[in-house]
Amino acid sequence: MEYGVVMELTGLQKQRSLYEPELPLCLQGRGIEVEYGEGTSVEDISDAQSVHKSFPFTFGQPLIQFKSSKLNTSKSSALAAFRIGVLFCGRQSPGGHNVISGLYDAIKSHNRQSTLLGFCDGIEGLFTQKVIELSEDIVSSYRNQGGYDMLGRSKDQIRTFDQVKSTIKTCQELKLDGLVFLGGVTSNSDAARIAETLTAAKCPTKVVGVPVTIFGDLKNQFVEANVGFDTVCKVNSQLISNVCLDALSAGKYYHFIRVMGKKASHIALECALQSHANMVVLGEEVAASKLTLLDITKRICDAVQARAEQDKYHGVILLPEGLIESIPEVNALLKEIHGLCNDGVPVDEVLSQLTPWSYALFNFLPTSIQKQLLLPPESDGSAQLSQIETEKLFAYLVEKEMNKRLGSAKHSGKKFNSVCHFFGYQARGSLPSKFDCDYAYALGHVAYHLLAVGANGYMATISNLKYSISDWCCGGTPFTAMMTANGWSPEGNSNVKLICKLTRQSQIDIVDDPLRSVTH
Amino acid sequence: MEYGVVMELTGLQKQRSLYEPELPLCLQGRGIEVEYGEGTSVEDISDAQSVHKSFPFTFGQPLIQFKSSKLNTSKSSALAAFRIGVLFCGRQSPGGHNVISGLYDAIKSHNRQSTLLGFCDGIEGLFTQKVIELSEDIVSSYRNQGGYDMLGRSKDQIRTFDQVKSTIKTCQELKLDGLVFLGGVTSNSDAARIAETLTAAKCPTKVVGVPVTIFGDLKNQFVEANVGFDTVCKVNSQLISNVCLDALSAGKYYHFIRVMGKKASHIALECALQSHANMVVLGEEVAASKLTLLDITKRICDAVQARAEQDKYHGVILLPEGLIESIPEVNALLKEIHGLCNDGVPVDEVLSQLTPWSYALFNFLPTSIQKQLLLPPESDGSAQLSQIETEKLFAYLVEKEMNKRLGSAKHSGKKFNSVCHFFGYQARGSLPSKFDCDYAYALGHVAYHLLAVGANGYMATISNLKYSISDWCCGGTPFTAMMTANGWSPEGNSNVKLICKLTRQSQIDIVDDPLRSVTH
Repeated sequence: MEYGVVMELTGLQKQRSLYEPELPLCLQGRGIEVEYGEGTSVEDISDAQSVHKSFPFTFGQPLIQFKSSKLNTSKSSALAAFRIGVLFCGRQSPGGHNVISGLYDAIKSHNRQSTLLGFCDGIEGLFTQKVIELSEDIVSSYRNQGGYDMLGRSKDQIRTFDQVKSTIKTCQELKLDGLVFLGGVTSNSDAARIAETLTAAKCPTKVVGVPVTIFGDLKNQFVEANVGFDTVCKVNSQLISNVCLDALSAGKYYHFIRVMGKKASHIALECALQSHANMVVLGEEVAASKLTLLDITKRICDAVQARAEQDKYHGVILLPEGLIESIPEVNALLKEIHGLCNDGVPVDEVLSQLTPWSYALFNFLPTSIQKQLLLPPESDGSAQLSQIETEKLFAYLVEKEMNKRLGSAKHSGKKFNSVCHFFGYQARGSLPSKFDCDYAYALGHVAYHLLAVGANGYMATISNLKYSISDWCCGGTPFTAMMTANGWSPEGNSNVKLICKLTRQSQIDIVDDPLRSVTH
Repeated sequence: MEYGVVMELTGLQKQRSLYEPELPLCLQGRGIEVEYGEGTSVEDISDAQSVHKSFPFTFGQPLIQFKSSKLNTSKSSALAAFRIGVLFCGRQSPGGHNVISGLYDAIKSHNRQSTLLGFCDGIEGLFTQKVIELSEDIVSSYRNQGGYDMLGRSKDQIRTFDQVKSTIKTCQELKLDGLVFLGGVTSNSDAARIAETLTAAKCPTKVVGVPVTIFGDLKNQFVEANVGFDTVCKVNSQLISNVCLDALSAGKYYHFIRVMGKKASHIALECALQSHANMVVLGEEVAASKLTLLDITKRICDAVQARAEQDKYHGVILLPEGLIESIPEVNALLKEIHGLCNDGVPVDEVLSQLTPWSYALFNFLPTSIQKQLLLPPESDGSAQLSQIETEKLFAYLVEKEMNKRLGSAKHSGKKFNSVCHFFGYQARGSLPSKFDCDYAYALGHVAYHLLAVGANGYMATISNLKYSISDWCCGGTPFTAMMTANGWSPEGNSNVKLICKLTRQSQIDIVDDPLRSVTH
């Protein structure tokens, strides 16, 4: 596929491309001061030793903060020309293009001779040096637009020693001063590994990461938000609100909506708050409370029944994409299936090798779900969540249970009807919200300033996001300060040992009841 | 369920409720002249006799056109107080509420003592006199909002003699001067029948219909557009464009999107034109060209292969909801299944009674599609189109064929991957577009003026829609002028004989190739 194409813009795209995001005060002007804080450790102090051992060169670096300088120092205007590479990692997220336009504008405003190189097809391009030089023409046609089509992406992770070697080779041969990764938890963990390896190999290229993921799970005391999350929640919430209104108008359907978000229920929760859906089931809380399929079914049925007693036969129920993996019994079944897959057991023999309990559960499920559970796992070991129609599973289980209840005298209402949806791609490909445009653009600038001060192994971070843009605080946080040890180890490959990974936020503090039902 | 609720509005809804649609010049002011044209016949003159026989009282009435009068006649300001009933028929369509707000404003501006009664639950309320008097408070909270939640709706049709009798009784007991139906082809055909029956029964209530349906198939020389179609096409097109961008960014998926629209491919075609999807398959053209499942599959595969030769492994393919019924062999199979269902054959015995050809076709299909084809038909005799996942059927058939082609030397590309979607409810429940707000509001006024001049058996019509609102031409067209004979006859019930029905637009003039592929 061809990348770096100067697009012919539609009227709307033209209008959007003209929008100039405001910059935080600390990034305005040419004189920007850098302040170094105390050295950092890790979130959980018991992990410090393991993380330090894995990241001897980049562990313990100080926090960085940028301040607007009153002096227009001649030093900054005389900055040497830079060569920086940038790539999209992992799944596309609205606003990604604005990180690149921010990075481009920052680079060029400090030295017109500096070069921004875009790697095509994500890390594929990093390994194979498939790269294009980004010009004003190219960058302009992607300003404030959605998608990742300027450069494409790949979802593969950096796994093998050969891949690490090709990355070092690329940095050396292209004479890169800096390399900027855009991505989520996995991609920024890879970036941390590359930062460490480059230093070990005495390669001068510095690595900076930017938190860009719709899943919104790359959050901690340093990272307040991920680029794309705001857009996806707004677009999904609007669609869910539409379905709520349609449900209310028709008065006879329960809509089960599965919402994209992989393991994290963040999008589902935020959409529930924005759209006032009738119920949301949170995967993290289901896992913590060890709720079974039938527990969840029963609770949904109780809510349906309570509404029927108010003469309401419609509703909207949100299910996070990763819910299926959060239900302990299904998780155990999936682990067995994936284990057998990884051992090379052919799919048609997997069933006969399941433990009796998992076999019984498997047989209890509808045929279509059975087929979906048997799909091979993703590269990160999780199930193919986008392919498993959890919404249909619960619609089926709830209907069965409601028919039983209808049979008894308890419930005299109408027949239970369901409609199922999966909301994912249609929101992920949308135009970025104003917040995501502004936030991404500012992060692009921050990434440049980190490289300009020679930071390596840092994530570009902005705090104070709830205040007006001018008051945003910009700086950098060492990757290692956000890490947890033994988060992950690669299967079937021992060349590269990645035992430390960025922490995935899995706690949702505000919720104490895993099944929250709003009866309106 | 409770209707006519004064809603607590969100900020957005409040803003929207304040919008005052502009009225066409001919509807402005208190002095409006009415011009009667020539008497009308039917679209196809050979149907004239049958339609005349079925509609002896309302056949052949003249066209009506409203003109702004220079005189502010005292006559119009002295109009007697009216009692008018209004109801939502058929499926909800964005803008429906504005027909009611237009009707309400027109009624009240001519005489504050006039009354607008809203029937709840559609024709259910008409039969049972479940009715609420609409007040400014109620109407205000639904101005320019989506859905049908002010009054609800039912999709049942008027079928039996008892239902017609209850309708007459309702009109008499509530002393209605007029009754306004909002709906599509079926609902307006019902309205035509009621108009005729009321005259025959010497009931003074006049009946007027308003073309409100997202399907957009109630179109002819008198009706240029249906309320809701514009909104649904815009919302769907935006989502489809998002998917196009997502497909381009990922570079590895073909998205098969089924678009709501029942028998008509109008929404799918309009969305293809607005979104520039890569391909759209039009049901009407498939039926006309008698394409088989495998013909369509082959043509999609040819396009996929042509794109692969350009190193493109992604794309977006639109399928209308009704496509499955338009494929002659599947249509024959569905007719057999529905015939057996109507004969009372239990579902598990249907298979054994299929003809050999249909049985072979049935067995060729994936299990999930088999189950969906076995669902009982809708009340209008069509298959349960929203439940049949045609997009999954084609994704499956195309994948099978592409794997075959990949096996041969012809095609050296990557694996074919698909993602399936159904876009329906999320667009149908959306806020109405500006056009739908304006058009619906004006139609509400037109409906009032038709009743004010004593028209019965008319549809409110506005032409010149492509010009600015002030230049729109407003009037009424007799239902019978848009009718086709023997369009439909009720099964298993001979009390009411409905052999004439409004013509459903099934021709899409601009397309000559049923499978249009744009390779971009």
